[in-house]
Amino acid sequence: MSIQFKTYILEDSTYKGGSKKIVMPEGIEVHKLSSNENPLGYSPRVRQALMDSMEDLSQYPDNTDIRLRQALVKDFDHELSEDHFITANSGSEIIDLISKAFLNEGDQVIVSQPCFLPYTAFTRWMGATAINVPMTADYDYDFEGILNAMTDNVKLVFLASPNNPSGTYIPKDVLEDFIDKVPEHVIVVLDEVYRHFAEAPDYVTGLPFVKQQKNIIAINSFSKTYGLAGLRVGYCYAPLHISSYIRKICKPFLLSSMALEGAIAALEDVEFVQKTVDLVFKERAFVLKRLKELKIQYWPTQGNFVLINPPIPDVDLVKQLEQKGIMVRPVGNFGAPGLVRISFGTRQANSALLKALEAIIKLKEVTI
Amino acid sequence: MSIQFKTYILEDSTYKGGSKKIVMPEGIEVHKLSSNENPLGYSPRVRQALMDSMEDLSQYPDNTDIRLRQALVKDFDHELSEDHFITANSGSEIIDLISKAFLNEGDQVIVSQPCFLPYTAFTRWMGATAINVPMTADYDYDFEGILNAMTDNVKLVFLASPNNPSGTYIPKDVLEDFIDKVPEHVIVVLDEVYRHFAEAPDYVTGLPFVKQQKNIIAINSFSKTYGLAGLRVGYCYAPLHISSYIRKICKPFLLSSMALEGAIAALEDVEFVQKTVDLVFKERAFVLKRLKELKIQYWPTQGNFVLINPPIPDVDLVKQLEQKGIMVRPVGNFGAPGLVRISFGTRQANSALLKALEAIIKLKEVTI
Repeated sequence: MSIQFKTYILEDSTYKGGSKKIVMPEGIEVHKLSSNENPLGYSPRVRQALMDSMEDLSQYPDNTDIRLRQALVKDFDHELSEDHFITANSGSEIIDLISKAFLNEGDQVIVSQPCFLPYTAFTRWMGATAINVPMTADYDYDFEGILNAMTDNVKLVFLASPNNPSGTYIPKDVLEDFIDKVPEHVIVVLDEVYRHFAEAPDYVTGLPFVKQQKNIIAINSFSKTYGLAGLRVGYCYAPLHISSYIRKICKPFLLSSMALEGAIAALEDVEFVQKTVDLVFKERAFVLKRLKELKIQYWPTQGNFVLINPPIPDVDLVKQLEQKGIMVRPVGNFGAPGLVRISFGTRQANSALLKALEAIIKLKEVTI
Repeated sequence: MSIQFKTYILEDSTYKGGSKKIVMPEGIEVHKLSSNENPLGYSPRVRQALMDSMEDLSQYPDNTDIRLRQALVKDFDHELSEDHFITANSGSEIIDLISKAFLNEGDQVIVSQPCFLPYTAFTRWMGATAINVPMTADYDYDFEGILNAMTDNVKLVFLASPNNPSGTYIPKDVLEDFIDKVPEHVIVVLDEVYRHFAEAPDYVTGLPFVKQQKNIIAINSFSKTYGLAGLRVGYCYAPLHISSYIRKICKPFLLSSMALEGAIAALEDVEFVQKTVDLVFKERAFVLKRLKELKIQYWPTQGNFVLINPPIPDVDLVKQLEQKGIMVRPVGNFGAPGLVRISFGTRQANSALLKALEAIIKLKEVTI
């Protein structure tokens, strides 16, 4: 008898990271519009908190995340209690925790591609399988299809609103209707890490459903609105019958001192959040208007990014933009082959992008 | 049908953290000798690296830990390759990764109490059970007992050298003999997070066994020698047939930018490591000599801490020392009821501790 490796892990591919940032000749600025990061950086208050936390970094962090959860309660205007929240080293790690808490070998989850890759990867690592009920051509969820795909083995349904990479969202009445119909043994995992950027009047987060004690977990992150992608902090909130269960597998000292203090400070700086949201709203309108004029197909977006059908093949677009120092993200591996996701940056970055797209279209017309 | 909670998680207790540090009246210094932290703090090079990494914290970290693994290869004098190493947000998270990679419901692991709590907790969270083969009265491993406890369901054996909380270590020939006899389907998990503090000539790490491609995983941490407990970084190394498998369940962007850059800088500052080791050697000799004079029973230690059999009940000792601003750790929950673990601090802290112990003993003699 030798070591028993789990087949579903053994046969999985190893994640290979690419390069972080392209390098341009001196003088040419790089505009990273490929990772939905915050072009404003992060709050100066966070900076100060990080500096302060560096003082006693040789000591273990708080062995509980209670102060961060108290800060979240305040951020949620006391609509939830500290027991509703779970924190972790990123939204992804929350997905990992949920998978570990609820999935067994042979279980199933439902995803709707195109979607965030960890939904399926972390599912596989628990020996469960993902059923893909693809989004519609408009990148709306096919909720009828999802309900039809239900089996007794389905444990989780992953939804995202706004969805990455499509930018589309789930209107309130549609989500309400689905949550009413979803079988009682299934938990809806609602990824709302882009929620601050949604301005549609009928946009809804998981909050009302958590308050109604539905089987729902709402995932959030400090990587987007708070501009702390490099710090790795995320959280979720869920009704107590779910959150108290997940908490049992939360490790002590899970968050670093810097993650804890940085996240608490980020929640306190409401002005920075507002500034970020204002920028995204303004730049989103600016970019979409111009994309329309350029007759580039895109999907209506509530995120800090837009999904486009590029005028030339995606690999060519990525390459040509890179030559101009602009990084964008092809999303074939999300389940949207040929399409490209572009983050909204500063006005300067967005203008550079639009100018480059215009040049590419003009060149294409000349070539044809 | 309702949500299927995993019984072994549902019935587990929720970890409740205590307070981080006692608060003393102004003017009275607090000596934290309860968490095996580094009294020298951490390297100034790390401080600079953390400051630098704060610059682009709004961007995602490297999506691979390859630079840290390259730094580890250098730290190991190129005796291993970057593929042998796995990094994570602490030594504990490495244990969690190993549990996830190798344990199924119904599996077993072997632990020897007293030992680090996560060995058993993370095992339970995977639906596996820990068989306890207690250490001997001298706090040596009962390797015969461990071999007798082997079943086909045993997947992992947790060993620690130096062991926390006993400070004892496994001599080279003893470990070699055990690894030769361990069944081929079992992986030895060797926790060596205190390895830099071992000075016994027959002390051995997992390195020769990994090079011989034995079924072994050696766990390390940046919390002790490098003084970065607050940053949360750890790693393990294992032969390629094991490390390449575990890597498949490593999440991208697992480490924060600060954890990555801080750990790399920590490895570079060899002088700081030496200074720390020198301090521990010197203070260990100082404290042990005085404990002997005070006739306080202790176990020979290769760690930056010592396990003592206190002259008064452990709760009383903790309380009385706390009143003098000295924090120590009772380790009943590690499986050593009544005993207390004390970290070696600065000379000032150690002197304060020894003076307090002396006073306690004198008071006891008077009372009797």
